[in-house]
Amino acid sequence: MAGSAIKPTPLLKDELDIVIPTIRNLDFLEMWRPFFEQYHLIIVQDGDPSKTIKVPDGFDYELYNRNDINRILGPKASCISFKDSACRCFGYMVSKKKYIYTIDDDCFVAKNPSGEQINALEQHIKNLLSPSTPYFFNTLYDPYREGADFVRGYPFSLREGATTAVSHGLWLNIPDYDAPTQLVKPLERNKRYVDAVLTVPKGTLFPMCGMNLAFNRELIGPAMYFGLMGDGQPIGRYDDMWAGWCMKVICDHMGWGVKTGLPYIWHSKASNPFVNLKKEYRGIYWQEDLIPFFQAAVLPKECVTVQQCYIELAKQVKEKLGKVDPYFIKLADAMVTWVEAWDELNSSEEKSSKQPNGTAK
Amino acid sequence: MAGSAIKPTPLLKDELDIVIPTIRNLDFLEMWRPFFEQYHLIIVQDGDPSKTIKVPDGFDYELYNRNDINRILGPKASCISFKDSACRCFGYMVSKKKYIYTIDDDCFVAKNPSGEQINALEQHIKNLLSPSTPYFFNTLYDPYREGADFVRGYPFSLREGATTAVSHGLWLNIPDYDAPTQLVKPLERNKRYVDAVLTVPKGTLFPMCGMNLAFNRELIGPAMYFGLMGDGQPIGRYDDMWAGWCMKVICDHMGWGVKTGLPYIWHSKASNPFVNLKKEYRGIYWQEDLIPFFQAAVLPKECVTVQQCYIELAKQVKEKLGKVDPYFIKLADAMVTWVEAWDELNSSEEKSSKQPNGTAK
Repeated sequence: MAGSAIKPTPLLKDELDIVIPTIRNLDFLEMWRPFFEQYHLIIVQDGDPSKTIKVPDGFDYELYNRNDINRILGPKASCISFKDSACRCFGYMVSKKKYIYTIDDDCFVAKNPSGEQINALEQHIKNLLSPSTPYFFNTLYDPYREGADFVRGYPFSLREGATTAVSHGLWLNIPDYDAPTQLVKPLERNKRYVDAVLTVPKGTLFPMCGMNLAFNRELIGPAMYFGLMGDGQPIGRYDDMWAGWCMKVICDHMGWGVKTGLPYIWHSKASNPFVNLKKEYRGIYWQEDLIPFFQAAVLPKECVTVQQCYIELAKQVKEKLGKVDPYFIKLADAMVTWVEAWDELNSSEEKSSKQPNGTAK
Repeated sequence: MAGSAIKPTPLLKDELDIVIPTIRNLDFLEMWRPFFEQYHLIIVQDGDPSKTIKVPDGFDYELYNRNDINRILGPKASCISFKDSACRCFGYMVSKKKYIYTIDDDCFVAKNPSGEQINALEQHIKNLLSPSTPYFFNTLYDPYREGADFVRGYPFSLREGATTAVSHGLWLNIPDYDAPTQLVKPLERNKRYVDAVLTVPKGTLFPMCGMNLAFNRELIGPAMYFGLMGDGQPIGRYDDMWAGWCMKVICDHMGWGVKTGLPYIWHSKASNPFVNLKKEYRGIYWQEDLIPFFQAAVLPKECVTVQQCYIELAKQVKEKLGKVDPYFIKLADAMVTWVEAWDELNSSEEKSSKQPNGTAK
């Protein structure tokens, strides 16, 4: 048996899918092999479906291209973006697992200040499995972490915390800047390793990036819709932001926590700022209305499921943001379609119609 | 001129006072000499006024003992706590500077992970002189810091930030735990250096510790009242918490920011948990009512000065917390006395009556 050591089973091995949107061969997985190899991957192929995406040997995956999406969702496929990484949310919908980790294919394993490779997925899982503290800020950061606790003055009744729905990880090297900031600071790199996990307080919005993100699909999955972006749409690069704002309003309503901070991944390549500017410019303008809208959004007590919350939010989007631009009327309709599709695929009888192109290990 | 190098003038040298409450000789200042020597100190001597407090040579200071406080404030001296470090707020009141830094005499210079001594005061000043971001959370932490910026999805209209009123620093070694946590984890030490400064979002409360704290006295000074603690009072160790909750509600109302995080100091000595438990136990019980009270507190638009806000808050304390315990009626009255005393001492004609025992360098 020498040389064939049995690998320890990683956390949540059978309860988590890794969702990767891509248009290219997935060579980046080689670097993640020690951390991802035992998990199941859901690959959402964007762009030309006739192209073949190569996946390194030894990974267990299913792969969906646009033809699969159209076949599985039928007319409801209209809610899934094309030619934009927003298509990743299709992977959330077809997963059958409790947890999702999603990562971009230009993200590599980062190192901590001691030079050790960071197992990003393991940190996300720890974040998701420990409570959040959305109701009161703990100055020594995550009180559930080893070597930390709640500080003096933290109410004892709040120390059980809230269930964690989302874990938002960060990026070393290329920071997640918008096009104007990319243009102004083309050489800026994120070199600061901040050794902290924080709960984003209740009532506070943040910019959620989809590059390195994990969530409890069973809890918040139906709110993790990445909107209408890319081909045929007036906007791009706001898919994760949109999901983050909707998700946060709903988590606040439901009493769930959202964390940000560790783990870091290594973001290798800045996207083209000129292309990004074209995708973003309406979003940059619109977000000045979106943020006040989401800050003021209130969901009625009657909304007790994420689906109910999301449908209600879609209604408010149509009513209030429809005036900003007709795009939001279309988006609100797509939000409803998304939830309908989610419920169809996630009822008990949907399995026969959902056969991907994937190959098994 | 060899050997007599001219020291560079530190930031805000003539605009900041360092306030230190103490009952002992201030040998701890030796370690702070390179960082504090050019600033003016205000020492508030607690306990027996006949005792002499020795201050190391070369420091520029004024010192007030209980006799001075009684003489300067007359009957209003009742609002200043005795035999509790809450007395430090008297130093805020008699200062004539724009900024205050306050530190405990068991706090020493900490080192960063590179082994360099941390100039805590300089970091606080940077925190106070740069804006805060209370309205939207930036995932890469302080966007005004070198090497950082606002991330994608951060509304451009919010990037000017808000004026910073308070900078709350942290502690390596002995964490600021309450008595129950001290008892349960007597050996826990804070070894984690988190390289971040954060804005506590609008609408979020946090436990403000007075050990390592700086603020813009001109802005928020009248709200930095540390309450009635210690001798003759049913409670201790909630002085800074009380000030922090009042201050945060008022900063949120006024549109000012509150930061927490860097700088760290080295907290040398855990206080006695049994003594602390006796001081804290009512506070631990009461804070379950205090937090919902402060979370729900709304100040009317008509309150446009900190003094007006503070008087209004005192009124609400009396009305709503008076039911929790008669102590809060007394505290509400003391809050009003404090603001009256503040205004008396900080009008233009107060100077003749305010001669401390201090010695000049």
